[in-house]
Amino acid sequence: MEDEPRLISYQNLLMRYVSNDPGLVAKDNDELSETLHAQGIPPDDLVAMHINALKRTTHLDPKTLRAFEFLTRMMSGYGKEYREHQALKNRQK
Amino acid sequence: MEDEPRLISYQNLLMRYVSNDPGLVAKDNDELSETLHAQGIPPDDLVAMHINALKRTTHLDPKTLRAFEFLTRMMSGYGKEYREHQALKNRQK
Repeated sequence: MEDEPRLISYQNLLMRYVSNDPGLVAKDNDELSETLHAQGIPPDDLVAMHINALKRTTHLDPKTLRAFEFLTRMMSGYGKEYREHQALKNRQK
Repeated sequence: MEDEPRLISYQNLLMRYVSNDPGLVAKDNDELSETLHAQGIPPDDLVAMHINALKRTTHLDPKTLRAFEFLTRMMSGYGKEYREHQALKNRQK
């Protein structure tokens, strides 16, 4: 689903973003977002990575975790769609 | 971006899910997920709807909101991809 260096990059940028790091510029976020695309990470895996990054850095109460679980379920169909789209695009190349 | 009845449906199901409502079955979640697809809601709009539903029902501290803002930014490119995929599929019909 995800590899450790990617999760660490995501986690670091997320923490800098949350703490309003003045050294963080919009370009940094855009670059990570583009990298995730380039690596073909589906949107449900992105949500899973977001939750993992939060779990490592923040205390999440059971209700928050449960709400995230709901979002992951709602997003799972989009992951399927995303994989289908990648396959379609590859066929058109 | 979203209409009120859809947000209310989402919010109701989310709250039932979070509170472990024993009357809620997997089918209910699957149906909502399928409806969102059928209506062509992109994944970034789904995250936005999730945040709106949480805002209405839960106290979200500034850090949690900021972390969600980050996820929304990361997801925005997926929304673009999703719209592109819908267009591709429509052309192939």
